[in-house]
Amino acid sequence: MKKLYSLIMAGGSGTRFWPGSKAAKPKQYLNLFGSESLLQSTISRFAKFTSNDNIYIVSGKNQAKVLEEQTTMLPKSNLIYEPVGKNTLPCIGLAAMFAEKENPDGIMVVSPADHLIENDELFKDTVLAASKIADKRDGIVTIGITPTYPATGYGYVQTAEDITGSEKIRQYKVEQFVEKPDETTAKSYLAKGGFFWNSGLFVFKVSVFIDAVKEFAPQLYSDLRKIQAELGMPTFENTLDTIYRAVESISVDYGIMEHARNIYLVEGNFVWNDLGSWESVYLTSKKDENQNAVSGESVIIDSKNSYVSSDSGLIALVGLDDVIVVQDGNTTLVCKRDKAEEVKKVVDNLKSNYKSQFL
Amino acid sequence: MKKLYSLIMAGGSGTRFWPGSKAAKPKQYLNLFGSESLLQSTISRFAKFTSNDNIYIVSGKNQAKVLEEQTTMLPKSNLIYEPVGKNTLPCIGLAAMFAEKENPDGIMVVSPADHLIENDELFKDTVLAASKIADKRDGIVTIGITPTYPATGYGYVQTAEDITGSEKIRQYKVEQFVEKPDETTAKSYLAKGGFFWNSGLFVFKVSVFIDAVKEFAPQLYSDLRKIQAELGMPTFENTLDTIYRAVESISVDYGIMEHARNIYLVEGNFVWNDLGSWESVYLTSKKDENQNAVSGESVIIDSKNSYVSSDSGLIALVGLDDVIVVQDGNTTLVCKRDKAEEVKKVVDNLKSNYKSQFL
Repeated sequence: MKKLYSLIMAGGSGTRFWPGSKAAKPKQYLNLFGSESLLQSTISRFAKFTSNDNIYIVSGKNQAKVLEEQTTMLPKSNLIYEPVGKNTLPCIGLAAMFAEKENPDGIMVVSPADHLIENDELFKDTVLAASKIADKRDGIVTIGITPTYPATGYGYVQTAEDITGSEKIRQYKVEQFVEKPDETTAKSYLAKGGFFWNSGLFVFKVSVFIDAVKEFAPQLYSDLRKIQAELGMPTFENTLDTIYRAVESISVDYGIMEHARNIYLVEGNFVWNDLGSWESVYLTSKKDENQNAVSGESVIIDSKNSYVSSDSGLIALVGLDDVIVVQDGNTTLVCKRDKAEEVKKVVDNLKSNYKSQFL
Repeated sequence: MKKLYSLIMAGGSGTRFWPGSKAAKPKQYLNLFGSESLLQSTISRFAKFTSNDNIYIVSGKNQAKVLEEQTTMLPKSNLIYEPVGKNTLPCIGLAAMFAEKENPDGIMVVSPADHLIENDELFKDTVLAASKIADKRDGIVTIGITPTYPATGYGYVQTAEDITGSEKIRQYKVEQFVEKPDETTAKSYLAKGGFFWNSGLFVFKVSVFIDAVKEFAPQLYSDLRKIQAELGMPTFENTLDTIYRAVESISVDYGIMEHARNIYLVEGNFVWNDLGSWESVYLTSKKDENQNAVSGESVIIDSKNSYVSSDSGLIALVGLDDVIVVQDGNTTLVCKRDKAEEVKKVVDNLKSNYKSQFL
């Protein structure tokens, strides 16, 4: 096995997690479960099978403070800052340019920082299986999550030929990536079989990925090469800033995965949740006998099926079911559970009214 | 007209108003409507027809700080502190002992500090009408509120003979005081007529009230006389403390009004609400087009018929109707409107768990 790098993408802003997430502390930095943040849990998950020296993180300048506080276990030089967020393709491309300088044959595992994954051992085995294909077949490998219900909130990957052979973990060639479906379509995917949730976890040889950028995003490729040429030079930051601000904002799915031919899928059977809203945090949290998930100081009277999280104060919930209450600093969210997606509207409202003290 | 004193009873602890009310700052000190607290509004209401020198306040020692802050318009010597709360009869009796020293023929108007009253001009006329009867007939006069619906949360006063004569404001002899009724009984009161809500507003000549205490609560009478004998002496506080702690806790309704014969009622047609819970504050607050009553910083999305009050932070309410959300300092209440009475349980829970930092 070639040297294994992991790249954790931690630049998201997580507006659906207000007020837990604020501009300076998005979702990946929150302790939603236990004592580690989602980012720290992601690092721990990789640290079980790769050295900390090989764990890289890409994030935004505006998150530098909290990122450094939460990643004291990593070399500082492994923290890569984008001047601005440009979606996943430029982000991964930038990190690949760093990695190529050291080892173009290295295998890179790309992971979002803000997902919930349980069963670290199976995660490791799945990543290692994906690395093997990436190395042997010069492929770009995605980890596809076995769907447990017809979710409409996730993109799907349709598989083609089964190439599992004697391997323990099932693996396939990929037919196509598909966008988030409506419910009828999602149900048909599950009925038909061969469809997996797109987890955002990718594994590839650095050189293979850079070749794909060259083929499918030639402008980005040439921009990234210009940036790479100044790596370690005093002019680097300036060059990065100038060039990166001008690159196209595009996802790796849309820019590469939907076009490339050498795409494979390894089946992920570990517990996975992209934690898209407080509702998904509620669903994946431990609950008490009234199906309430509670953290921090609280008094719960005559209420059930609710998520109550208090950061520094006390929340009293009386006579209400199916609600989300989150207190963080000077802000409190009170939301019906099935309206958790609308929290984005709160953030929009605060932005348009210049109430940055609450963002 | 004899000299008019007003006595504002401000000793309540208001546990149904947590978290707005805390042990050191009960309901009467809250700015529930506009820029004045309920106590300050009560003082202003009396100040329109009596001098500030004649406005007395009885409260608890534990509320001294906030009371003094909010009553800088009154002479400090007009603030009377009970060592402990003993319900309304000892409270009024104590104040009557102070007043008697100055003017036994004075007329005293007793008012709770924490009610909502609108139309100050009509209030004044009503009080003056009551004072006239109290003076002329040596009676104890209660102001009865004309019921607007069959309330089960208020006590009632049944009237007997109409003694209005040529007066503008209707007045009656009182038949009896009755406890809070069930709904059927309340409906029958309204159908029958002659029933008024017991407002807790009383008017009497000081000497007449003291005579009634002597007749119907002789032990309290003799205790109060002992306290009065040391008024202005260095031993006063000690004597007050020792004796007052031992007196029976009893309401003026139960101890005197239900027994005395010289009881009259003057009809109060001003807007009145005893503000028994956040629900009644919601009902009497100004509302926006979605029937939300909102104060402080907030973002309201897809929610109606709700009360949202934020003291120092911001509350976002998303997708919920008929709720009460109150943030005060380090505490936030989230409550279904029809469960507003259960807020007492939150306070009980915090007490029994020794969480005084939230009380």
